[in-house]
Order: sequence, then C-alpha cells, then structure tokens
Amino acid sequence: MGFWKSLFSGSQASPSPSVQIDAPAVEVSGNFNYNGHKSSESRIFFSTDREIDLYELEELCDAVGWSRRPLRKVKKALQHSFLVISMWEERGSVRRLIGFSRATSDHAFNATIWDVVVHPDFQHQGMGKALMKQVIKELRSQDISNITLFADPHVVDFYRTLGFMADPEGIKGMFWYPSR
Amino acid sequence: MGFWKSLFSGSQASPSPSVQIDAPAVEVSGNFNYNGHKSSESRIFFSTDREIDLYELEELCDAVGWSRRPLRKVKKALQHSFLVISMWEERGSVRRLIGFSRATSDHAFNATIWDVVVHPDFQHQGMGKALMKQVIKELRSQDISNITLFADPHVVDFYRTLGFMADPEGIKGMFWYPSR
Repeated sequence: MGFWKSLFSGSQASPSPSVQIDAPAVEVSGNFNYNGHKSSESRIFFSTDREIDLYELEELCDAVGWSRRPLRKVKKALQHSFLVISMWEERGSVRRLIGFSRATSDHAFNATIWDVVVHPDFQHQGMGKALMKQVIKELRSQDISNITLFADPHVVDFYRTLGFMADPEGIKGMFWYPSR
Repeated sequence: MGFWKSLFSGSQASPSPSVQIDAPAVEVSGNFNYNGHKSSESRIFFSTDREIDLYELEELCDAVGWSRRPLRKVKKALQHSFLVISMWEERGSVRRLIGFSRATSDHAFNATIWDVVVHPDFQHQGMGKALMKQVIKELRSQDISNITLFADPHVVDFYRTLGFMADPEGIKGMFWYPSR
C-alpha cells in the first residue's frame, strides 16, 4: 500500500501509471470516509460533511480558475445539495482540501452532479476518478438510479471512462438562456 | 378572453393558431396561480402545491405511456423537488390534472427540470409551452440562473422554442449506467 505514500510523501515521486482507483472499501469514521490507504507522511480521505470552510472551498475553485461566486449563495447551495463530497489530504495534523463535488437530487430517482474540482497539484493522478467513484458510490448507496451531469467538452472522455454516456438514445442536455 | 373558452367549452372548437402563451400576469389565490383566463365553463390554472393525489398523477403519466413508478418513491421525489408545478382544468367544482412538471435544485444556482407531462387531450394547444413558461418563471423568481433539462430527441425543438439551447459551448448531458 505504498501508493499514497509515493504520491504524497516529500519526495513527490512520479505517480504510478497503475493508479488504483478501485480502492479497498472505505472505512467510515465520523463524517469521514477513510480510504484505507495510509502512509506515515500523508493520507487522502473523503468527507460527506457539508460544513466546509467556504474560504477554503473558494481557494480550491480559484486554483482551477473558476469565476468567484457569492459565498452566501455557495453556502445555500451546499445546504440544499443532496450530496457533498470533499477530498482531503492530511499530513500530520494539517488537512488540505484537494477536491470537491456535490449533487442535487429528488432523493428518489435522479441526481445531477455539479462542481467537480480537483486541485491542480493533484490532477492527473487518478484523484478525479477516485472522487467521482466515491460520488457514484454514495448516490447508488442511497438508491439513486439516474445519475446525470453536464460535462464541459474537455472532460467528456474523462466521464466516459467512469461509465457516463453522452446523449444516450439521443437525449440532449439543454440550458435555458434568459435573453432568448 | 375567449381563448380558454374556445378550447375547453363543450363545443371543443379547434384551438386558435394564435394561442396566447404570453398570458397576462397570473393571479395568486392560495396555493393556486390563476392565469387570468376564465370562462363560465372552464378555466385552466397552475398550482405549486406538492400535495398532489398520487393516483391522479399516475393516471396522467399512464395517459402518455410512461412506465409506472413506485408511488412511495414518487411521493419522496415530490417532497424533495425544489419546485412542483401542476396544471389543472376546472369545470364547475370538478378539477382535472392535465399537466405536471417538477425541478430539483440547490436553491441557489442550478435547477434541473424533470417529468414534464401534458395530457394527450390537451397537447398541441400551447399547454406544454404555458406550463414550461410557468416553470421558468417560478425558477427565475427564486433567483435560479442556470435552468437545465434533459430532452428526449422528439422534444428538443419544443424546448428550443422556449429558449433552451442544446449542448451550449459543447457541454454534453451525460448519464451513468451501472453496467459499464
């Protein structure tokens, strides 16, 4: 289980191409889902706690170049999301928010995933895939059968590798624009 | 204001091609939003009351050939939808459910519209358009800026006429499938 260590230890070794996203079942501890991969230096874990420091979340979104949004509205959106998943790196007593996603839902049939973000320092290492697998797992565990999202063109292939299909049976994602 | 009368009076006159979907501002009465068009025989109104008779809703969905869904789950979905809009015909003291739609949302940024249905007896008369305009109006009144939906191929053009755009800037609607 040296994978996480190789990724997150001080040496910052190149990530292995055989990144294991099919991780062992997560251990749950309080609000945190530990993924079981540990090293003496750092570990990565997921949390479904929606009481996230909004400034820390804003910093993460800044890092990927997203437009800033009013924190008041972000707070409201988190409160009313069906699922909030954050991904953290823990080094000693220091936790760093390195990924985030959330989903809206009717709690019965459909969920729509929004705001998938992984910090640039942790991209291209299987982290986005691990995050999305956790999101899907959580939604499935709550009996949501229809998991949807709207993908920017450059991430369509990424979502395909996770089992998402674009325009299945000709179904089109559509957005309403006020000016029309 | 003879439009609704011509549609819904006993004579069932052919609907005018100049159907007014840009109706006057709705009047609110209790949970019901009256659209201002009235006749002695019938009137059409919208409601945002989510306590809908589930059997009546099932009957409406049956009429358009949708697969039946467990009413327990439908009830849960209605409870956890951000917006539920139903469209009713009222003749004397008799109300008939003739249309329905709902939306999930984070209450801040995004909404996704699901389950848009108009009874076949009332299709091709501008009713679907009126229903959708009401949905958009309600969502906009609650400061939702990103209104989305997933459209079956045969209704993509219908939504286009309402200001929805398919795949804007290459954004793709995607669905997750368990078997992949």
